Formats: sequence, C-alpha cells, structure tokens
Amino acid sequence: MQFLSDNAARVHPKVWEALRSADEPDKPYDGDALSQQLDDVFSTLFGRECHAVWANTGTAANCLALATMADPHGGVICHREAHIEMDEGGAPGFFLHGAKLLLADGAGAKLTPDSIEAVLAAITRGIHQVQAHAISITQASEYGQSYTPAELAAIKALADEYGLALHMDGARFANAAAFLGCSAGQAAGPVDALSFGFTKNGALGAEVAVFFDPARADLARWRRKRAGHLNSKGRFIAAQILALLDGDLWLELARHANAAAAEIAAMAGERLLYAPQANEVFVRLTERERAALRARGFAFYDWDDATARFVCAWDTRMEDAAALARAVGSL
Amino acid sequence: MQFLSDNAARVHPKVWEALRSADEPDKPYDGDALSQQLDDVFSTLFGRECHAVWANTGTAANCLALATMADPHGGVICHREAHIEMDEGGAPGFFLHGAKLLLADGAGAKLTPDSIEAVLAAITRGIHQVQAHAISITQASEYGQSYTPAELAAIKALADEYGLALHMDGARFANAAAFLGCSAGQAAGPVDALSFGFTKNGALGAEVAVFFDPARADLARWRRKRAGHLNSKGRFIAAQILALLDGDLWLELARHANAAAAEIAAMAGERLLYAPQANEVFVRLTERERAALRARGFAFYDWDDATARFVCAWDTRMEDAAALARAVGSL
Amino acid sequence: MQFLSDNAARVHPKVWEALRSADEPDKPYDGDALSQQLDDVFSTLFGRECHAVWANTGTAANCLALATMADPHGGVICHREAHIEMDEGGAPGFFLHGAKLLLADGAGAKLTPDSIEAVLAAITRGIHQVQAHAISITQASEYGQSYTPAELAAIKALADEYGLALHMDGARFANAAAFLGCSAGQAAGPVDALSFGFTKNGALGAEVAVFFDPARADLARWRRKRAGHLNSKGRFIAAQILALLDGDLWLELARHANAAAAEIAAMAGERLLYAPQANEVFVRLTERERAALRARGFAFYDWDDATARFVCAWDTRMEDAAALARAVGSL
Amino acid sequence: MQFLSDNAARVHPKVWEALRSADEPDKPYDGDALSQQLDDVFSTLFGRECHAVWANTGTAANCLALATMADPHGGVICHREAHIEMDEGGAPGFFLHGAKLLLADGAGAKLTPDSIEAVLAAITRGIHQVQAHAISITQASEYGQSYTPAELAAIKALADEYGLALHMDGARFANAAAFLGCSAGQAAGPVDALSFGFTKNGALGAEVAVFFDPARADLARWRRKRAGHLNSKGRFIAAQILALLDGDLWLELARHANAAAAEIAAMAGERLLYAPQANEVFVRLTERERAALRARGFAFYDWDDATARFVCAWDTRMEDAAALARAVGSL
Repeated sequence: MQFLSDNAARVHPKVWEALRSADEPDKPYDGDALSQQLDDVFSTLFGRECHAVWANTGTAANCLALATMADPHGGVICHREAHIEMDEGGAPGFFLHGAKLLLADGAGAKLTPDSIEAVLAAITRGIHQVQAHAISITQASEYGQSYTPAELAAIKALADEYGLALHMDGARFANAAAFLGCSAGQAAGPVDALSFGFTKNGALGAEVAVFFDPARADLARWRRKRAGHLNSKGRFIAAQILALLDGDLWLELARHANAAAAEIAAMAGERLLYAPQANEVFVRLTERERAALRARGFAFYDWDDATARFVCAWDTRMEDAAALARAVGSL
Repeated sequence: MQFLSDNAARVHPKVWEALRSADEPDKPYDGDALSQQLDDVFSTLFGRECHAVWANTGTAANCLALATMADPHGGVICHREAHIEMDEGGAPGFFLHGAKLLLADGAGAKLTPDSIEAVLAAITRGIHQVQAHAISITQASEYGQSYTPAELAAIKALADEYGLALHMDGARFANAAAFLGCSAGQAAGPVDALSFGFTKNGALGAEVAVFFDPARADLARWRRKRAGHLNSKGRFIAAQILALLDGDLWLELARHANAAAAEIAAMAGERLLYAPQANEVFVRLTERERAALRARGFAFYDWDDATARFVCAWDTRMEDAAALARAVGSL
Repeated sequence: MQFLSDNAARVHPKVWEALRSADEPDKPYDGDALSQQLDDVFSTLFGRECHAVWANTGTAANCLALATMADPHGGVICHREAHIEMDEGGAPGFFLHGAKLLLADGAGAKLTPDSIEAVLAAITRGIHQVQAHAISITQASEYGQSYTPAELAAIKALADEYGLALHMDGARFANAAAFLGCSAGQAAGPVDALSFGFTKNGALGAEVAVFFDPARADLARWRRKRAGHLNSKGRFIAAQILALLDGDLWLELARHANAAAAEIAAMAGERLLYAPQANEVFVRLTERERAALRARGFAFYDWDDATARFVCAWDTRMEDAAALARAVGSL
Repeated sequence: MQFLSDNAARVHPKVWEALRSADEPDKPYDGDALSQQLDDVFSTLFGRECHAVWANTGTAANCLALATMADPHGGVICHREAHIEMDEGGAPGFFLHGAKLLLADGAGAKLTPDSIEAVLAAITRGIHQVQAHAISITQASEYGQSYTPAELAAIKALADEYGLALHMDGARFANAAAFLGCSAGQAAGPVDALSFGFTKNGALGAEVAVFFDPARADLARWRRKRAGHLNSKGRFIAAQILALLDGDLWLELARHANAAAAEIAAMAGERLLYAPQANEVFVRLTERERAALRARGFAFYDWDDATARFVCAWDTRMEDAAALARAVGSL
C-alpha cells in the first residue's frame, strides 16, 4: 500500500485515451490544435484572461514563471521549506541567472504578510544587497496547507505595496482548490502567475505555467524553448491537460485524494502535525512505529526523524487509506 | 501526404504498449526499474561502458552533454548550420552559462578536420578571445549527411591533438546508423558523448544523452535536475527507449524512413542538393514548382528560397513517397 | 617609439593632479562628491539628460550597457570584427547571461542599415532562433572609422523600426568626436547608451557607461555592484573623468592622437587600408617591411599577415610619428 | 573624526609613489613587469607556490576565487553574516552562475567545524538539493574576529573529509595577520585560495586572488577577463600591491589600525560585542548614546539598532581613537 508520493501514482484512463487520440500528425511544438486551445480553456476556468505555457515538470513551470518576475540581480521571497528552495536542485538559480531566494518563515510552510515583511525589513544595505523582486507561495504548501482567498488577497496587497510580483507554485493546486471548495479563480486569487500541476493528479507528465498577462507568457515562451522544454510533440502534453480539465476531472481526482488523506488524519489524533488541507498527512511517529507500519505493508517517506509523510493520490484505494488509518490509530 | 518533419510522425504501437506497461507505481525520477536498465542496454548496444541520462528534448540532451565539455568561458566548435546554432533558441548559451558557439564550414553541414582547424587557427588573441573547449558534430547532419567511421576517427584525432571534447548530436542517429550499415558503436565512433534521439523515430518524447565516462554522466545528472528535466514519472521516458531498442526496432524504423527518402531522391536527378544519407531529401525547386506539389497534396517545408525539404519518418507510407517521387520527377 | 596601443600610453598630468586632490576621505562607492557630479557634467556635455555609471574597463562599461538592452534569450547585432565579439573574452555572454552576438558585415568594421537588415532577414525560424534585441556600433570602429551623425540617424531609424535598442562602444569616442569636429552629442547621435572611454586617452583607468534614460542607468547600477565593479574608493575613478572633461581636455588629447595618426597615414599612400578617422592607421606591409620598421625602433602590432596597425595616443611625440611616416614612405 | 570605514581611508604615500613610478609605457593587461613579479613576491610571502590574480574589488577577487571551487549547480558554505552573503549584491550568484550560498552559524561570524557540519547534515535529498562544493571563511570576520592557525587546520580537515575546497575572504587579512602575530602563511593556513585585500589598507584600489595551485589561477584568469576585470593598465594595480608588500608595509599599517581599535575597545567595557582581533570595534550603544557621540564629531555606522561599528584604518590618528575611547568610556 503506497503512500510514498502522488508522483508515483498511475496515469488516469481518460489521460491514456486522450494521448492515443492525439496520435495523429499535427503541427509540432505548440502549434497543434490541442495546445492552441489551452489559453481559452484556462481563461474559462479562471474567469480571467489566461496564457498557458506547458512544460515537462513542475520545476520547469515554476522557474519559467519566476523568470518573468525577478531579474538576475533580484530575489524571490519564499518559505524556507518551499519546494523551489529545498527540492529543485538549484533550478531557480539556473533559470533566473543567479537570482536569490530570500527565505521567510511561517507555520505550515505558509507565508504571511508579517513573515514577508520581516524579510523585506532586513534588506537595509541598498545596492549592496539583493532586493526582493517577487514573492512565491505554494498552494497547497509543503505541509498540505492551503491559502484562503482572504489570505491570498492580503499577500497580494503587500506585494503591490512593495512592487513585487506574486507567484504561486501549484504543484498540488488541484488539492487546494478541492479543499477550499471554491472556484479555480478564487483558489489562485490575484497572483500574477501560477504553476498548475497535473502530473501528481493523473497525468503522465504535464505541467502548465498559467499567466494572467500576455507579456509574461510571451517571455516564458522564449525561455521555455531555450530551456529545452518546448517538446516537438507538444500535443501530447496539451492532450493530458485537456483531458484532466474536461468535466472537472482534475477536481474530482483531487477530492478523492484529499478524502483519503482526511481518512488517515482522522485517526492520527494528537500525532497530527497539521490538519490536512490537501492530500498529504504528516504524523509524528517514532522510528519504531514507522518500522511497525512498514512491516504491515505501508510504504511512505520519513519527513524527518520524528515524522512520517503519507501522500494520497487519485488512485489511492479508500480501503488502503482506511487500513492505514486504523494502523496509525492503533499505535 | 506529410513530409514536413519526422517530429510530426506518429508514436509506434510498440511504444504505446511499453508506455501502458510502465503504468504501475515505481520509484519516481530515474530510480525506477526501467531507467535503471538503460546503462546496461546502451553499454551492450555501443559495445563500451555507457551512462545514459534521459531528457525530454533533443535540445536538452544536446545541451546537458555539451555542458560537461565546455566551461562557461569556453566555446564549442560546430557547423554554422548546426541545430544547436540555428534552431535551439539559444539553449547552448543558457545551459553552458554563456559559452560561445564557434562556427565552422563544411559541405552538407558536416565538419572536417580542415574546417575545424580553420576555426582554431583564427583564435589568436589569447586571453582576449574565447577558446575552443569542445567540438560538436551532427550524425546525420542538417542536410541528412552521415559521417563515416573513418571521418569520425579523423575528427577525434584532431580533437585529441587540441585537447577538445567531442560531442555528437544524434537527433537522427538512427538514420545515420541505418544508412552506414554499421554498428551503433561504429556510427558513434570515438565521441565523448552522444545525444541519441528517439522522438523523431517513433517515440512520444524520449531523448538520451549517452556518456562513455561516468564523471560526465554524473555532472549531467545534477544539471538535468537543475534544468527541470528530471521528470517525476521518468519511467515513461525509459519505457519508450527500451521499446525502441528492443529487437533493434529503432534501426528497422530508420531503415524504412531512409528507404522512403531514397525513393524520392532517386527521381530528383540534378535537382538534388545532396544524395541522402539519412531520411531527408533536399531538392531545388522554384516557388512555382513547390506550389504545384502542394496543390497535389504534398506537405513540406521550404528550406530556403530555392529548396524544398522532404522528411520521411517511420510511418511514411512508401506509396506516398513513390507518389512524391513521381511528382518531383515530372516537374 | 611606441605605436602598440593607446592602452600603453601614460597618465596625463592633470589626471594625476585630480587623483591626488581626491585623496581625502569621502563617502565610499559612488556616494562621493565627485561621482555625484557626473550626471550633470555629462548632461551638459551631451546636451541631454545623462546618467553616468563608471566602471573599471571598457569591457565592463560595454557589457553593463548591453545588459540593459538584450534579455538573456536575445541577441545583439554587432560587426563581426567588433571588440565585444573579438576581444572581450566572452564577456557579453557572461554579463548578458548567454545572450548571443549576431554578426554583421560592413567595410571598415562599420555597420550599415543594409548590413544590419541582412542579419535580421536571416532570422526566420521564430521561437527556434535567437531574436535581435539590440544593435551595438563602435565609434570609432576597430579600423578607426567614424560614423557621421547622418549615419547614426539612419541606424537609429532602423533600430526603431525593429524595436531594437542601440548601443555605442565608445572606447575611442574621443577620437571619433575629434575627427568629426562636432559636439559630443552629435558624435553620439541618438544612441540609447554609450560606453565612453578615458583609459586610452590619458586616464589611469576610468570608463563610463552613459545612459540617456534613468531606468537603464538604475538597472546598470545594480549590475555593476553584482559584477564587482563598484569600487569602494570610486571617487578616484570619478576624479579622472572630471579632469579629462574639464576644459575639453579629452578632445584636445584626442585631436593630438588623431593628428599623429594623420601624419603617418599621409605617407602610406596606396598601402593605407582606410583613411584614418581617428587615431589608428592600418598599413599593408609585408613581413619583411614590418621587420625593417621594427629594426628601426618602431613598436607596433601585426593586425594580420599583411597589415600593420599603428596606434597613436595623447602622448605620442609628433616627431616620432613623423619619423614613422618617413620610414613607411621610404619602404 | 572618521570611523565609518577603512574603505574611506586615504591612499598611502608609498602607494602614490609607486603609482607614479609605474607611469611608463609597458605591456598592457597583466603582461607588464610589475604584474609579472607578483607570483614570486607572494610565493615568498606565503612560503609556498602562489599564483596571484589581481582585481579591482574584493567582491571580484572573492568571486573569481570561488568560481574555481563551486560548479554552477553547487553551493558554498559561508556564515550567514558573511560579506559574500550580505554585501556583494548577489555577486556570487553572478560569477558562479547561480550556485548557492549555504548559510552557517557561528559566534563572531566565524564558522566552526560543528557549524559547517550542521549545514552538511541538513543536505539529505540527494539530486534534489544543492550540494556543498566549497567553504568560505573570512579572515578577519565581519565582527573583526580572527581564525587561529589551529582553527584553520580544523576547518581544512573537515573540508578534506567532505571533498570541499576552502576559500578565505581576506579583505582584512592584513589586520588578522597583524593580530595573530604570525606569518602570512600561518594566517592563511591551508586554504586553497585567498582574496587578499589592499584597498582597505592604504591602496587606491587593489585586490588579489592568491591561488596555491596553478590550475585554479589559470581558470581565474579566463574568468577575470570575461568579467571585465583585466584592466588594460594593470601595472597600476600591481604597483600598489608591490608597494604595500615592500618591507612589510601592509603589516605595519594593519598594526596601526588594530592598535587604534584596541584603544577604543579598552574603554568600552561590558558594552563591547567582541574583543577586537582586527581593526573593527562593535559597541552596544543606544540611539541616544550614538547621537551624543555624533554630536561630538565622531562619524561611524550603526551596525544594528543597538550597536555601533567603529572601523580604524592605517591613517586613523591615535589621538582621535583616544578621544573616541574617552567619549565611549564616559557614556
């Protein structure tokens, strides 16, 4: 029973279907009919003008978006446990040509206006210090916590005050939107660009940087080509995205993953690090307890010495989640 | 009848099969069982120790390989019509952190020891000029011309004399190997790394940088992650490659594409720019002649004002090639 | 008798005086009283609003200016013999984060609207090719040729048509202005930024990137710090510049160097590559002839196998120039 | 009475003399007779083979050295208050092409084997995280604290254990060496490269990256040119360095600055942040107390809300230091 990562999940049958249907000759790169639909489909979804730039990985989508926001001599404020800081092998330094991540604090790996202002307040040496050009938040966060529309608005107000662009890493945007129960537009709030992930939610490999401004999207397209992310058979990326957006399949799959996570969390009691607001559950467990769970067939990662992380996906069986919940509850 | 690009071709049924078979949970990134087989499979294929680093595009595979060969302050000698110079949106400048392409001449977009030495001889200003660190050749070249093992050996000897690394862009390596009728090892010759393309030859999207030295491969793996090319479901890239290598399917598909190209070339007579040594045919045609062909249902790109390029793929129907051959012959 | 380079010339006595006068504690970096005067002094000189960013070398001044004009994924059109292409060790690739130099032709190493348009016309592959973002011209050129105000206006018109920024490498701007006999403003024409050199014209080490737009200057200041060119005792750079601008000393020194060059050119007859329009003389001389001159005590560089380059400076003695002129004339 | 910065100090008369003496035509860049002496002079000074690469600023010298130690995808461990992190405007990100600074703790802005190991221990995610390639320490530190030879040896042992290169930022190396009372070689210990500063110690503008290995120096020379730090009249940088090394003037000047700092510290009592081990004194002072000192003519920077920083230089008058000491003592 696999709770290692939503990365390890299967590809959804509808995605397979869409892939096979896309296997007719069409224009290469993003000139095909499917890629050309994306701007409209996302515009409808978000309720404002969207420009969609697909890419192969979340790292690429994040960094292509951020590169439209921070100059090489600038910085991006993010949480010190954010994926771009911890897990992308220095990709922001590469795509942003040496720009710096400026690390902020916040419970549940969420930024707050206060934690952002603390970073800004420490930049006091003018030309001698890297200045913030942008803020990056993660929806849902590394600890599966989601920003409410009100929280997003407050961060955007601060960003505007300081003239900073606002980016959202949405590798698990679907899970956040499903948790919040609001529209995609509300779950994204007033951010300037969003990396919208599909790979963890039923795709084979498909991520999109969604821009709400054509100039940023134009810039990102040049950078995507230059980064080797303009696949020649791009229609196969677009096909996956369209299949998952169709009939709100993306939300349905995310709701399932969230429900499985909730099931586990319900039995974790005081051991729970955070009440899950997406598809991840962090549970305080000793080494011995983790070994016991593994012995019973549950696969998961140690988050740190005292914490296990369980990730549910669209294909997590509810009975497996229930079994894990019981096993955790009985520890 | 489509002769635009082998990029536009279909995905081979065996690749679809392999993709579906790979749809079981496994370790993410390149830790899965399929990715882990690649080093061995390529080592057998090339008859020497190989280290395979898959990527999403030929641009990425080329640049990841080149980044192990040229320092940011160095240069890479390539043909002035090479793909890395003309068609990769400046990706070498990005992946190599500002290293420079040093442009050489040569008929059929092939380099020769003489044309390479001409570039080296022009670098006379020491510290004030970018020095060559590597050579990049394309097998088959932009004009569908292949390097013989003897030609490869001669270039390698020159590279060694000057202490330069040697890279091969093998986006159409299969077509070159099929044309040469030699082993993969002979078609690659003594290069230090090879970008081996599968996307133009039946894959959905799968390219590999093959290194013959573990240190370069190790470096490329760090850089791949940092460039956002370490897909989380990497097993789907590995699966495609294994399917195409299995039973030498890659060679069979390339032979077909080459045969279709040969069919067209056979009727082009004096109009032929080069006798094809792969799957591309360049034919001198006036604007009016090209219009006439298009009116008869043939799709292809203008290479320049006086030349049409016809590209055959694994799925080009021989009857379509024959029809095009007749149409060209009758002009 | 030294005709190797104006780089090798002495420091002017007025510059020494200014350096010594600056040796009082003042604010570090560019906060000192002298640095603070530069914007005004250059604005008066050029007859339009100027923002001056000093640097240690012409390479730095050029690249700081260019970095405000071309994105990392863009290109800069320059002559194929331009200093930024031939003699700056790849600095544009470094400061511009991998942007590409797009090489154009033109007699005397001068660009023309036609030669620039030829480069633009060859960029036909859209997203797959590096697009031009800027043009860089050199006043005076590598062959000591100067652009007239009318030529500058024509290039600017073309730049505007294509939305390209226009940079002038003015390492020998003083010599061009002296030759043209026009104002500094006319010699710079309508360029967007100018690297104005003083080191070859009597300074110890002082170059300025002059911007005609505060946004570019602001950007360049951040980049200057980041490139390690914001000297802590910057007042000593500013002092040199102010000394050379005072009473148009810069023009007087350049006129002298130009006159010495003209003296040599006058005796070179048909051997002359170009009639000098600055302080450099290129003369066709066989290896034997060059050896003969060297045997008579003249030091100079071979430009190529068949050409000697003689460079005059502010401290070239007219009698030395006359002696060289006679020697050349007698060959 | 100026205690703002040793950056603001005057140029020593011997340096002026040397500059004037260097004002004879010689080979440009670093081909002149003075630059050519540096390797030998430093080799004698440090008692081991040295290769000296001068530059215009400490930022450049630091970053040129670090760029030989960390790949673009790697990291450099440094103190979170180190100059390269806090005061160089992101220069390491530029010169190292996006490499990351990995921040460590330590009293007095000094690293310890333990604080370095804590950083290394936190890098647990393999390919997904930036790995340390080098360590950078500052001699003397941002708080004017010096590493003893034993401390240097311990850090080097750790660096070797982990295969990390070791860099020393020696902007105030002279002050550290003077404090330690040991040889230059002992004060540098077994580091792989040292940025040796002269600008804060009597020069007009002269810094050197000293390498103990010719391969690193060779690399740094290419990078220096590419960064626009290869001044054409480089002899004037070399002249300053030689003047300050001659007869150990550098040590004499540093001893004076240290003595002035000690004078101030002696009266600061419990207010002292650290007992000075160089030429800087950090004193806890309220806003009101700082205002009182300023009202009496003392110029200095606020380090933070509760601390004043007083910096002494080679030209600080002992009577001024004594006056400041009395003033502080009387608060």
